[in-house]
Amino acid sequence: MKSSTSPLLSQINHTIDFKTKPLGALGLLEDIARQVCSVQNTVSPRLKKPHILVFAGDHGITQEGVSAYPSEVTYQMVLNFVQGGAGINVFAHQHNIDLTVVDAGVNHDFDPQLPIIHHKVNYGTENFAKSPAITIEELEKCFVYADELVNKLHQNGTNILGFGEMGIGNTSSATMLMHKLLDLPLEYCVGRGTGIDDQTLTRKLHTLQQASDTFNTQGNPLETLRTFGGFEIAMMSRSMLTAAKLGMLILIDGFIATSAFLGAVQLDNSIQKNAIFCHQSDEKGHRLMLKKLKVRPILHLSLRLGEGTGCALAFPLIQSAVNFMNEMASFDDLNDLGATN
Amino acid sequence: MKSSTSPLLSQINHTIDFKTKPLGALGLLEDIARQVCSVQNTVSPRLKKPHILVFAGDHGITQEGVSAYPSEVTYQMVLNFVQGGAGINVFAHQHNIDLTVVDAGVNHDFDPQLPIIHHKVNYGTENFAKSPAITIEELEKCFVYADELVNKLHQNGTNILGFGEMGIGNTSSATMLMHKLLDLPLEYCVGRGTGIDDQTLTRKLHTLQQASDTFNTQGNPLETLRTFGGFEIAMMSRSMLTAAKLGMLILIDGFIATSAFLGAVQLDNSIQKNAIFCHQSDEKGHRLMLKKLKVRPILHLSLRLGEGTGCALAFPLIQSAVNFMNEMASFDDLNDLGATN
Repeated sequence: MKSSTSPLLSQINHTIDFKTKPLGALGLLEDIARQVCSVQNTVSPRLKKPHILVFAGDHGITQEGVSAYPSEVTYQMVLNFVQGGAGINVFAHQHNIDLTVVDAGVNHDFDPQLPIIHHKVNYGTENFAKSPAITIEELEKCFVYADELVNKLHQNGTNILGFGEMGIGNTSSATMLMHKLLDLPLEYCVGRGTGIDDQTLTRKLHTLQQASDTFNTQGNPLETLRTFGGFEIAMMSRSMLTAAKLGMLILIDGFIATSAFLGAVQLDNSIQKNAIFCHQSDEKGHRLMLKKLKVRPILHLSLRLGEGTGCALAFPLIQSAVNFMNEMASFDDLNDLGATN
Repeated sequence: MKSSTSPLLSQINHTIDFKTKPLGALGLLEDIARQVCSVQNTVSPRLKKPHILVFAGDHGITQEGVSAYPSEVTYQMVLNFVQGGAGINVFAHQHNIDLTVVDAGVNHDFDPQLPIIHHKVNYGTENFAKSPAITIEELEKCFVYADELVNKLHQNGTNILGFGEMGIGNTSSATMLMHKLLDLPLEYCVGRGTGIDDQTLTRKLHTLQQASDTFNTQGNPLETLRTFGGFEIAMMSRSMLTAAKLGMLILIDGFIATSAFLGAVQLDNSIQKNAIFCHQSDEKGHRLMLKKLKVRPILHLSLRLGEGTGCALAFPLIQSAVNFMNEMASFDDLNDLGATN
């Protein structure tokens, strides 16, 4: 330990190092424990009312034929979330994580009675092959809705919040965010999304290259977010910022959610200390994104599903990090035990 | 799918592929689901009464100064297990996994009233730097005890069984098993165990090289197990064999447990289909062990603790694989849903 270590961090390290295990033997769980304790300013952390927000939105860029599925799948999957039949439903239920589905901008009129949050900004974004995906007013709306959502969860006691998304076409948006915000060649960023073939991949790359040439948003995270969308990504990005500022832990899922995080962290890099990266996706650009962020994801399960599934699946491991801090004996306890036997 | 695919496997693949997700989007969870379904001969698998056996034993080889901790830590940790203060207690409790601690050969007289299984074969193994660690009679005893334990759990309804261990000095045994059973140079197999320094590592390598030269057990798994021990490894090895033959899923933890598996699978390679590799340890040789077995572990958390902690931490992900099979909607359900809206 360096002498510059804060008193809290010294206390956290001491607690970890005196647990009944060899030094460092819990590996990444120790790093997670250190982070959770630091964010919560305690050596006895608690995960309260874990919640996952799944933001759904449609994308004008799908008109260019860049996706494996038609746009209609977005609203069908929202209905699937409501019915409890999607992957995220199963995994959130397994770990007692509350789930809220947000219509950020799906191209469908949902029954107002459905148990979703109706924050529809528009019926899908504009096609960014032709014009910016989101207007200034729409972006502002995304942020107002995001703050409303997150403040409510915070007031309700949630201190750990995961982020998921559903939106046919949104790997194209995420690819553009990665390309512009990390200033990386487009070829490093583009991938197969939900499983497009070689021909579609070539078309996707070509379409995105043209859009990149048209809109020069480098160095401006807000303008990048607005130009390449989508509503679900913008709302997620702002929600991450707001949640972190409120002291919550924020759980980052796969490629799309990490692209939203890129936008957020470039607006305020202090939020990185609150972010736990849950899963390294099989989507090609994600590994490089995480590398650029200098973070180590918890899971490597070759998922490429989104919906916040990586957050839900990593949650029990974050809980394990918290539990060992609170429940494992220390060597002092063990010595007491040995002395009485 | 090849035309040679069995009817059951076709049915499993069909069920997985028609879940509401892109093809293959659940990555490793799909592989786990496929394995669990195949072992249980069903597309509706169930994990029943999950259980972890932690085998503890002492090692004569510690007389050579190859460990970071003194032998007394073995019995102290057994007492810690009993008190519920160890890592494995915390994680097993978190996931409702039953835990049984087995004294396979600890150099300590435990109170007979303690809630552990008293299968002590001897007060630690012989020092294999000088003579074989285990006698033929002792090895036989290990196997009888193992069968008794596993049969009882099977009768009680357990169909998924994890294996953990505690034994100061047992990375030396595991290193020798890896070296002899995989016919790999000792330098590839030896590592720092619970955290030995450079000097101790040099001594460990030298000691093990001498033992390797003295006892030529290559090509004979039983004789290798007997010569390099320990009691907890032998009992674990046989338990894996018996559990797999009874149709259970067997959860393999880190370096020591995988060395026990190496012995088992060389006696009966049909057990590999039952084995789920839970975690790739930070112990140097483990990655190579897993590579030689051609398996992909679920977690990469840089743990090096043993005790079955990797099994407990991976368990919720195996449960997730089972849950998505049973609970996720299929595209047929989704179409029905879409049609009514």
